[in-house]
Amino acid sequence: MFRTHTCGALRLSDISKEVILSGWVQRIRDKGSLLWIDLRDRYGITQIFLEEGVSSPELFNEARELGREYVIRVKGTVVERESKNPNLPTGDIELRPASLEVLNGSKTPPFTIEDKSDGGDELRMKYRYLDLRRNPLKENLKLRHKLALETRSYLDSQGFLEIETPYLIKSTPEGARDFVVPSRMNPNEFYALPQSPQTFKQILMVAGYDRYFQVVRCFRDEDLRADRQPEFTQIDCEMAFVTQEEVLNTFEGMARHLFSKVKGIDIGDFERMDYASAMKLYGSDKPDLRFGMAFEELNDLAKNHGFKVFDDAELVVGIKAEGCAEYTRKQLDALTDFVKRPQVGAKGLVYVKINADGSIKSSVDKFYSAEVLQSWADRFDAKAGDLLLMLSGDANPTRKQLNELRLEMGNQLGLRKADVFKPMWVTDFPLLEWDEDSKRYYAMHHPFTSPKPEDIALLEADPGKARANAYDMVINGVEIGGGSVRIHDRDLQRKMFSILGFTDEEAQNQFGFLMNAFEYGAPPHGGIALGFDRLTAMFAGLDSIRDVIAFPKNNSGRDLMIDAPSRIADAQLEELYLSLKPAKADKS
Amino acid sequence: MFRTHTCGALRLSDISKEVILSGWVQRIRDKGSLLWIDLRDRYGITQIFLEEGVSSPELFNEARELGREYVIRVKGTVVERESKNPNLPTGDIELRPASLEVLNGSKTPPFTIEDKSDGGDELRMKYRYLDLRRNPLKENLKLRHKLALETRSYLDSQGFLEIETPYLIKSTPEGARDFVVPSRMNPNEFYALPQSPQTFKQILMVAGYDRYFQVVRCFRDEDLRADRQPEFTQIDCEMAFVTQEEVLNTFEGMARHLFSKVKGIDIGDFERMDYASAMKLYGSDKPDLRFGMAFEELNDLAKNHGFKVFDDAELVVGIKAEGCAEYTRKQLDALTDFVKRPQVGAKGLVYVKINADGSIKSSVDKFYSAEVLQSWADRFDAKAGDLLLMLSGDANPTRKQLNELRLEMGNQLGLRKADVFKPMWVTDFPLLEWDEDSKRYYAMHHPFTSPKPEDIALLEADPGKARANAYDMVINGVEIGGGSVRIHDRDLQRKMFSILGFTDEEAQNQFGFLMNAFEYGAPPHGGIALGFDRLTAMFAGLDSIRDVIAFPKNNSGRDLMIDAPSRIADAQLEELYLSLKPAKADKS
Repeated sequence: MFRTHTCGALRLSDISKEVILSGWVQRIRDKGSLLWIDLRDRYGITQIFLEEGVSSPELFNEARELGREYVIRVKGTVVERESKNPNLPTGDIELRPASLEVLNGSKTPPFTIEDKSDGGDELRMKYRYLDLRRNPLKENLKLRHKLALETRSYLDSQGFLEIETPYLIKSTPEGARDFVVPSRMNPNEFYALPQSPQTFKQILMVAGYDRYFQVVRCFRDEDLRADRQPEFTQIDCEMAFVTQEEVLNTFEGMARHLFSKVKGIDIGDFERMDYASAMKLYGSDKPDLRFGMAFEELNDLAKNHGFKVFDDAELVVGIKAEGCAEYTRKQLDALTDFVKRPQVGAKGLVYVKINADGSIKSSVDKFYSAEVLQSWADRFDAKAGDLLLMLSGDANPTRKQLNELRLEMGNQLGLRKADVFKPMWVTDFPLLEWDEDSKRYYAMHHPFTSPKPEDIALLEADPGKARANAYDMVINGVEIGGGSVRIHDRDLQRKMFSILGFTDEEAQNQFGFLMNAFEYGAPPHGGIALGFDRLTAMFAGLDSIRDVIAFPKNNSGRDLMIDAPSRIADAQLEELYLSLKPAKADKS
Repeated sequence: MFRTHTCGALRLSDISKEVILSGWVQRIRDKGSLLWIDLRDRYGITQIFLEEGVSSPELFNEARELGREYVIRVKGTVVERESKNPNLPTGDIELRPASLEVLNGSKTPPFTIEDKSDGGDELRMKYRYLDLRRNPLKENLKLRHKLALETRSYLDSQGFLEIETPYLIKSTPEGARDFVVPSRMNPNEFYALPQSPQTFKQILMVAGYDRYFQVVRCFRDEDLRADRQPEFTQIDCEMAFVTQEEVLNTFEGMARHLFSKVKGIDIGDFERMDYASAMKLYGSDKPDLRFGMAFEELNDLAKNHGFKVFDDAELVVGIKAEGCAEYTRKQLDALTDFVKRPQVGAKGLVYVKINADGSIKSSVDKFYSAEVLQSWADRFDAKAGDLLLMLSGDANPTRKQLNELRLEMGNQLGLRKADVFKPMWVTDFPLLEWDEDSKRYYAMHHPFTSPKPEDIALLEADPGKARANAYDMVINGVEIGGGSVRIHDRDLQRKMFSILGFTDEEAQNQFGFLMNAFEYGAPPHGGIALGFDRLTAMFAGLDSIRDVIAFPKNNSGRDLMIDAPSRIADAQLEELYLSLKPAKADKS
């Protein structure tokens, strides 16, 4: 037997027990006549204590042979500690060892196994098995396990069935790039790895499985940004015979369940905001509602006073930073620099200070009277001590710039608290996006997304104005998931394809098996997909998904630990009827 | 709203309620003045009843326009049926429709949507969305969902964490053939899809996650037999700081939990049998213990009596078929034919009948006296009416032949009941297999499997005799899973590699990242992997796994519904730096 208890289990109530522990040597302190070993496993740390006269010289010698991360088994007696450690659940006790056995040695790790490690990113990825020993990663993976379990528990309670869809599917030219898998048994043909089980879940609705879900791996061969992974996990869901309202309520319930069970937080009802309002009030389709600072528009009050910048602008719009009237010149300059960064792209920033004495000072005093500036302040419901920050220009870009400024102010003022969660639904997304390059409409969500019934007439008259029964779940400014009610009527589907510039034949080629299935009694249906890595990172309070994934890849799509991808044997290529072509970038 | 109730929900207690149902038209019976519609969804069937004088002529007309598999919404009133159907949970009521709306039409399905369909295999796979509407498949997928859920529930309760391992990993030349995935970002390099997460779960043990599991997809590019799929699902598990006994108890507990929760059966303790006994008693490392008929060996009683076939044989061995002494000549000839089939391969069959009057009649009467034949009967503890069936030849092939005969007799005598479950552990598998072709040992399980401590000395003296700490879970003669305690000692691992003919360098090349991880404090560990498709089929009482998988592939690895694999665009090949070579079998 390797252990009677874990290293996190022993308490005062275990005093005098003979126990066996196994684990890793976290650290050793050797004071000559006294020696302490911190023994660690997944569950905690227990202190082993050797004392001259009590512990045998042989035991001392064995203990002195140990190194960091050695795996040992210790038999001994639980005793009460003289100086207790209140920060450790096992801090009231320690183990007097009777014997000590090395189960396995260890080289000295290339970085420290502590909450804050001294290892760089690449080194930690190469030795991921050591990095994963650190508490923060351990907590992330435990959290991930619990979130998956509670997701399944909730969806099962709502009558959903988890149904596994295939990973070896068919490549489609639309959308993001597929990873492909050459087939040996079908020479010169390829499978594709799924970007999502979208078509399969719709097929399952046609098959009558009216509540489907799957926690499922998805694959996209995209150029990777800091926080994208070539493989990622999705909570994929679909329902039949439901309205949009029923879908939203079901998954709002799921989020509420997760926050309640995993974090002990009642997040209450989701705010709902249509896309148009989100853009107008926050300049973003994923506003962070942990703080207010909604946009106010000032065209009527700010234009036609001789300030050319505003006069020429399509939109003059601003936010109110409460209590910031004391901002120094330097601070205001820094904000101006912020909005002028290429990533934000504004031309300049106008400020208006409502001073403590009620007087108003602005960067545009020479164009506007005190009365006019007061009318701006009234529009914002600004009080003494507040600061107004205003941008202008073409409406949409200006809103996006102001969104960046709003988030920056939220950061500066500490309004984006890690332990506050403000989930919401953004609804009524546009159905279509116009692409200037190809002079055609693209589906904003996907071609099977249903327009809002009241907007179907617009499909003829003004397709760009039609709104979709599409929705995003947004928490704290992060898009956690999105979905839509799908089209189930064949005529409407045909019209959508024609608006998207498909001939009937092209539609059949690209979406054939789904279109065929739709000929055999497709029920009304809709669904959602939630990013599980992103959701877990949100629960963990992390910005990056990398440390909620046990074995992530780096920005080149490489797994540094196993050194993949790699060359394969010529015989393998031969069997697959493939030959390699030299890469353009290849110097050889 | 599409429905207030499902088609399986309404009961007598709902009489007079105004309800809305949605579903598929299962069938319509039109008697002129009376018309019935069976409306079906995932949850059941509800009868809709139209009666002249009560239902409007318009409604009759609408109903007569419906076809099989149309999707409709019906509003109406629940009424008590005049003639109840006790076979249907909703059989006490029917719906008097007030209105009826076609949500979607349907072409006539190419086969019937009934428990027994008239569709052939290929047709049913092409129209899988229709096949999946049939009750047996629906029940299979519900069962699969429940088994996965209960698996997770049990393992969570035992402190296991589900940890997702990557699907884009590294190709290894040993073992079965990998599916590979060309990397666009790393030209001329390939990922491989995992055949199992074996190395990753061992890495997780090194990382300190002492109880890991995952319900995970695995991939093997093998030539497919009737019941193999290129992608399949595995319950993959690993534990650290455990003995083999603890592993067996944990997963015996899991199986017990599943049988109890999903089938309501207490299967009791698993029988345990070492590999040597299983081979000796049943000629199989996966004996079906639903019935006895264990082998008896007769060398001492059957040889040296002048019957050359037995005299020349390494082994004379038989089974007792109780109550079969009345078998006719024809029946006995059929059994002889059975064992002589090339798939079985025996040269002949010797029988001994213990007649009702106690006299003995055998096919070898001219070589053996009544006394000798009686001594055989005594060996088998045979009674009047029993039949002995005996084979002879080289020991191992003969045992395998007799295993086939035993299973055939079990079938003929109805002893292999679908509702009886006899799980067992087969333990102490040989560590190594000798391969005559390559004149080297191969690991029977894998190179990281630990020999039994008491057999380590044999590694030098007689490696082929060493037994492993390896075990299979067998239920009703089907191998549901297998695993082993792994080697965690580096010296022993090195010795294993040398026995397997690896140089240190080769071992490093092939198992480098795991070997590296083992340098940093690897704990003792062991695990198991269970075939989830196979387990589900077992629970469903099916021999084939195909109908417990939502979207299976055929024997050529093709998905007939989506028509994958398929050709991909030249641009895709270009991006991947690949070109196709004509397949040898390609006639073009």
